[in-house]
Amino acid sequence: MKFAVLARDGAARRGELTTAHGTIQTPVFMPVGTLASVKSLTTEQLRALGPEIMLCNTYHLMLRPGVDLLEQLGGVHRFMGWDRAILTDSGGFQLFSLASIRKIKEEGVEFRSHIDGSPYFLSPERSIEIQARMGVDIAMAFDECPAYGLAHAEVAKSMALTHRWAARSLAARNAFGEQRAASSEQENGGSHAGGDPSLLLAARRSLIATSAPALFGIVQGGIHLDLRRESAAVIGGMDFDGVAIGGVSVGEPKHEMFEVVNFTAPLLPEEKPRYLMGVGTPEDLVNGVAAGIDMFDCVMPTRNARNGTLFTSFGKVSIKNARFAADPRPLDPRCQCLTCRTVSRAYLRHLFVNGEIAASVYNTIHNLWHYLDLMRSIRQSIASKSFGSFRDSFLSRISSGDADA
Amino acid sequence: MKFAVLARDGAARRGELTTAHGTIQTPVFMPVGTLASVKSLTTEQLRALGPEIMLCNTYHLMLRPGVDLLEQLGGVHRFMGWDRAILTDSGGFQLFSLASIRKIKEEGVEFRSHIDGSPYFLSPERSIEIQARMGVDIAMAFDECPAYGLAHAEVAKSMALTHRWAARSLAARNAFGEQRAASSEQENGGSHAGGDPSLLLAARRSLIATSAPALFGIVQGGIHLDLRRESAAVIGGMDFDGVAIGGVSVGEPKHEMFEVVNFTAPLLPEEKPRYLMGVGTPEDLVNGVAAGIDMFDCVMPTRNARNGTLFTSFGKVSIKNARFAADPRPLDPRCQCLTCRTVSRAYLRHLFVNGEIAASVYNTIHNLWHYLDLMRSIRQSIASKSFGSFRDSFLSRISSGDADA
Repeated sequence: MKFAVLARDGAARRGELTTAHGTIQTPVFMPVGTLASVKSLTTEQLRALGPEIMLCNTYHLMLRPGVDLLEQLGGVHRFMGWDRAILTDSGGFQLFSLASIRKIKEEGVEFRSHIDGSPYFLSPERSIEIQARMGVDIAMAFDECPAYGLAHAEVAKSMALTHRWAARSLAARNAFGEQRAASSEQENGGSHAGGDPSLLLAARRSLIATSAPALFGIVQGGIHLDLRRESAAVIGGMDFDGVAIGGVSVGEPKHEMFEVVNFTAPLLPEEKPRYLMGVGTPEDLVNGVAAGIDMFDCVMPTRNARNGTLFTSFGKVSIKNARFAADPRPLDPRCQCLTCRTVSRAYLRHLFVNGEIAASVYNTIHNLWHYLDLMRSIRQSIASKSFGSFRDSFLSRISSGDADA
Repeated sequence: MKFAVLARDGAARRGELTTAHGTIQTPVFMPVGTLASVKSLTTEQLRALGPEIMLCNTYHLMLRPGVDLLEQLGGVHRFMGWDRAILTDSGGFQLFSLASIRKIKEEGVEFRSHIDGSPYFLSPERSIEIQARMGVDIAMAFDECPAYGLAHAEVAKSMALTHRWAARSLAARNAFGEQRAASSEQENGGSHAGGDPSLLLAARRSLIATSAPALFGIVQGGIHLDLRRESAAVIGGMDFDGVAIGGVSVGEPKHEMFEVVNFTAPLLPEEKPRYLMGVGTPEDLVNGVAAGIDMFDCVMPTRNARNGTLFTSFGKVSIKNARFAADPRPLDPRCQCLTCRTVSRAYLRHLFVNGEIAASVYNTIHNLWHYLDLMRSIRQSIASKSFGSFRDSFLSRISSGDADA
């Protein structure tokens, strides 16, 4: 994996991330495909929306269909027919939000599946092994995500565990790459005798790098800025390919979240991609980019779509609202998505209030397009050094709330 | 509307139906879009599957969103963004299968909505008015559909009512066309004075014909062949644009249904399209074509798709079956649909057992493609005078039931 910052506008960065499954323009929003499916869409529909990378959940996929099956079927890309990049989380966040936990130990976490109660174990080594065997492009270090509201001492203790797990995640990733590279060399009859030693070393390093996913570390520390500073220094100092801010959007007020993000982002290594996990609304993306974030993911556009809440250039609307019943206009006249190009507000409301499956499909297409198009506009504005004015006009437009605009 | 039989092979007919929304190659299967949405698909996905005509339900659309709204929004084509032909049923069948009926009188039917119990009235005149105002290409006469198992005398009485309602439906359609033609002439400043009277008459007839939908009559008579003969003579003798066989697939055994179809089809006018309503399985379509049927509709491919039952060249399969869990092959290796081209049996099973919405989408795409592709093969085989051998090999292939074929 390679990352290059192409342009800057204030703290905002316009970059390019290169993976084995294509190049990703940043800042980027990654649609969430929990179970190797972005809910409501075929892989072809997702591809048509244009994202260069998507996210899948290690926790969900290890339960269903399981890593053995995924590996046997050629990895998660082949499983869902997706040829662009995939990032997986480590399972850490879902363990603390979904699973019934039996024991957190230094070694790892014993838990029971939220589906059928069957017992599982996750550790840095196991999480990395699963992510690597699923064949993803970017894996995340295994971390502990402390709940909002914990006291400083408890968060500090949790953070220290996350730091030890980060080092073990990194070692596990490197070991996996070396092991796969060795078996690949063996299959190919060993390294060529008589070659230039420095070229051989470079080739071996490249083989190791492509035999395992890129790995991002995760900064924790809750809302305690001294802990965030310490975590940024520790994680930022390790040999990760990128650094994420985790443990936000877990119930804290929005201003506390942005206090953490605005404080932490500048402490992260300049040359590595920065990923703000699980965030957020369109405003959050714009404000996150302003803080220097390069990557985002969130279930909000897809989950809200299924609930009939749609993001537009004039703010959020609930499509079930009676005022749309006879409205022949496109949902968002400024939007170029399939939904806005082909059907009316009246039709979208009709499908939603009558529980038609196509409502979820149309709504998901629109909301994801809205997010992806917002990121395109953000990237253009950074490249043309007009991000500040873009941000101002964006924030004022969405607060107008005018469906008749 | 125009219909021409292009080729014959035994009783099977290869024809062409011309409507204001395009030409339809027959024999044809019409996907069902109950509420102006073929369940699970966007209109674009439906279009990509290639059907030249679809069916909507008058009963459902009159309740939700209602004909006033549909007319105000430019008709059902515009409402759902569909530019090909639409046929609507008359509401007769749903009245007797879904609604809570208060009174059946000579005039029409008082009933309560199955949604909220609110009172409605349908009659031949009201049904035709609704269908015409929705702007559909082909409307169906309003009929009574007797339950399976009724005695001969009751079915005869019901059939006689259907015949009187057929005459009223036809009169209502003609009156609607004349009324619309007159207001259209008025808007355009009246008919041109001084023209050739026979040309003027032809122009007026054409204006009337395009101002209202084509109308098909419906033959009833239950499983009583003498009543079917009488009904075919009465309905076949009226000035309908096509004739349907109704009142089948209402619970009778398959051999009784085909006794009726095989008996009735040859009694219908040669020069008009013949439509077998609400039928059926792939085998039923092949056998219906063999009896001389030109048009079919059924919820089976779309409803079964949502239940995980998929039609293949080797018969029906239940995708949730554990034997598909690790199967990397396409669902049907002979199928060229998006689903079979892009994902595996293992992925389809994973989506279905985990309740992913995309399961319904992929399954619906496959099942509809299977039906539409079957009709393409049927049309080719009639044109090349090989329908008999096609039918034999089709019926033997689907009874093989071999998912490993």
